[in-house]
Amino acid sequence: MLIVQKFGGSSVANAERVKNVAGRVADAYRAGHDVVVVVSAQGDTTDELIEKAAEVNPRASKRELDMLLTAGEQMSAALLAMALKAMGLPSVSLLGWQIGLKTDSNHGNARIKSIDTERLTFELSKRNIVILAGFQGVNKFEDITTLGRGGSDTTAVAVAAVLRADLCQIFTDVDGVYTADPRIVKGAKKLEEITYDEMLELATLGAQVLHNRSVEMAKKYNVDLEVCSSLERKPGTKVREVAGMEKMLIRGVARDNNVARVTIIGIPDVPGMAYKLFAVLSAAKINVDIILQSIGRDGSKDIVFTISADQKEEAMAALKRVEMIEKAKDVLVDTDVTKLSIVGAGMESHPGVASKMFEALFDQNINIQMIATSEIKISVLIDKKDSDRAVQAVHDIFFTD
Amino acid sequence: MLIVQKFGGSSVANAERVKNVAGRVADAYRAGHDVVVVVSAQGDTTDELIEKAAEVNPRASKRELDMLLTAGEQMSAALLAMALKAMGLPSVSLLGWQIGLKTDSNHGNARIKSIDTERLTFELSKRNIVILAGFQGVNKFEDITTLGRGGSDTTAVAVAAVLRADLCQIFTDVDGVYTADPRIVKGAKKLEEITYDEMLELATLGAQVLHNRSVEMAKKYNVDLEVCSSLERKPGTKVREVAGMEKMLIRGVARDNNVARVTIIGIPDVPGMAYKLFAVLSAAKINVDIILQSIGRDGSKDIVFTISADQKEEAMAALKRVEMIEKAKDVLVDTDVTKLSIVGAGMESHPGVASKMFEALFDQNINIQMIATSEIKISVLIDKKDSDRAVQAVHDIFFTD
Repeated sequence: MLIVQKFGGSSVANAERVKNVAGRVADAYRAGHDVVVVVSAQGDTTDELIEKAAEVNPRASKRELDMLLTAGEQMSAALLAMALKAMGLPSVSLLGWQIGLKTDSNHGNARIKSIDTERLTFELSKRNIVILAGFQGVNKFEDITTLGRGGSDTTAVAVAAVLRADLCQIFTDVDGVYTADPRIVKGAKKLEEITYDEMLELATLGAQVLHNRSVEMAKKYNVDLEVCSSLERKPGTKVREVAGMEKMLIRGVARDNNVARVTIIGIPDVPGMAYKLFAVLSAAKINVDIILQSIGRDGSKDIVFTISADQKEEAMAALKRVEMIEKAKDVLVDTDVTKLSIVGAGMESHPGVASKMFEALFDQNINIQMIATSEIKISVLIDKKDSDRAVQAVHDIFFTD
Repeated sequence: MLIVQKFGGSSVANAERVKNVAGRVADAYRAGHDVVVVVSAQGDTTDELIEKAAEVNPRASKRELDMLLTAGEQMSAALLAMALKAMGLPSVSLLGWQIGLKTDSNHGNARIKSIDTERLTFELSKRNIVILAGFQGVNKFEDITTLGRGGSDTTAVAVAAVLRADLCQIFTDVDGVYTADPRIVKGAKKLEEITYDEMLELATLGAQVLHNRSVEMAKKYNVDLEVCSSLERKPGTKVREVAGMEKMLIRGVARDNNVARVTIIGIPDVPGMAYKLFAVLSAAKINVDIILQSIGRDGSKDIVFTISADQKEEAMAALKRVEMIEKAKDVLVDTDVTKLSIVGAGMESHPGVASKMFEALFDQNINIQMIATSEIKISVLIDKKDSDRAVQAVHDIFFTD
């Protein structure tokens, strides 16, 4: 088998952990597999480098930040290659440009355009373990770029796709995908498998195990993913196109506390109003999630929508550029909210799922502010103070035997 | 003018110093010059990385060490580019591979084969200040290499050569080349200029201002060098083909405490003996400096030679492989010696120089163990305990008005 393994920054934070990772890699190699490993920068390296940059230039260009930060992955890749060699295993570290990992020129958040497999297959043909510096690529001008959040996951999936790897293992500090966050919810169970679409919804909804972009890419190129623990040696959760013979009704409960609810009261009810509003937000790269619009009355209406709480200030600045907002009675922002969601490909054929979720919340006397549904998920917006109770109650109603 | 400036690790050791360097670069740029800057890794970065490597693999491969260490120069190059931008100056950092700096495959001590000027001239044509990561290149397999000791100096001189720069300034923590080490010798004077050959002798002899390889390259490609202080803003010492209208009698006094004297007593006096002896040392990459051989007597003779004290163990191991050494009466190694040298292109036409030097040592009652001369230098081996007194006395006799 050809296996791509990805280890995050905490997995390679110091010499001892680098050696531990080398042990995991060695197991796969000694079992006869060809292995490509993608690593992130060690521990807090990236944060330390960002701090260094801020000391010389608080508004450093993204091009130079990419140049600075990619040194982090370069160092951890070299160290892991050394650790493997100390175990007597042939290994070679490679950087983004050395495997022709071409991206667009969007420094700090670049998209992968292509990867040249020549060097990779050459090294694998020699039975070398290839250690790749994750998160990095080069644009067509040969300037170094970075792939943004979850960039090393994306590197791993992209490399697995072009090499047609049999499996792409993402090692993290959790040992798989759970029916809910086990740190919050009693009785949360590890899933053996999950579909790409379910994982996408869970990632978006704040499960934070895998970054969305890597799951989207895995789905597009049909790369089998496995989320495993970098600490314990046991099976993780498989992410693939079809998961399980019988679809589970719901796969998991997720919550996202990084949400802001924006309420615009009494905006003029004229054609194109919603279009202009959301076009401005879109131009400012603000993702709008749940949208609720009141029925027009007296020539005006109310609009409520949610965004990521991180983008609150940018969103308010963008809204100031919409003329009609001036005519609104009020614009309110509330970050004391949580989005609670259940996800499962099975729910589309089970109409009772939503009412079961609402029942669990009603039993806890938790008020639902907004509702959004898709074929494989139901999300509700609730008070942040109810968040822990809510996720436990909803999990209990679906997962308690 | 096109100026190449090189700043060492201590000059960019922290944010404050990086900003200071940016100020020096800015002066040259604002004076209308085109500027290429070569930087080393910050302060102790290289040592810290070597330590990290040793933690995971005490015998890490040179290929992976090069991958690891070059991250150091990458970080300082990015930080300096950021600092210049913070001052409103256009700048761009570039790595070895991005300027096509090709080397041979001798990892850890690679030689430069070529540099592609396309990217460099493109950036300069846009009036960008180019910040280059020194010390690094790539071999023909696109693996990262390093240039060994003095590598950033070599990068600066090589880039100055291919760009036909008007000047290559090497900024260090000393402000120029002196007639003797000013930390030891009272009355040591800074030289305004010096020839390549003189500088080469002084570098070899332990003046440690510039690495030999960079001076050799400067001489080969006729690159005007200037050694200047990174802290003070005043003229340094120019190194060029012809220095001064009137040649100075001697340029400087240097001493080297890193010397070992090897004495082989009573080795058989047969043909090829010296050849075999020094062939073995040469094969072990041990540079032999002064050689003295007694006249053969009773079928045997004595040989005395000096080597770098660092290579004492390697030399002794190599000598064990010479059969005839077993027949020698004794092999002695003494590291309590110092090589004291005077250098100056003027001395070839002034026969009295040597006797003047010996007179100064005689007046101090200092015994001369060995003597070696070339057209532009005279070296003597003396007891290490006499070293300070000797260098002061010799300096006084030539440089006191």
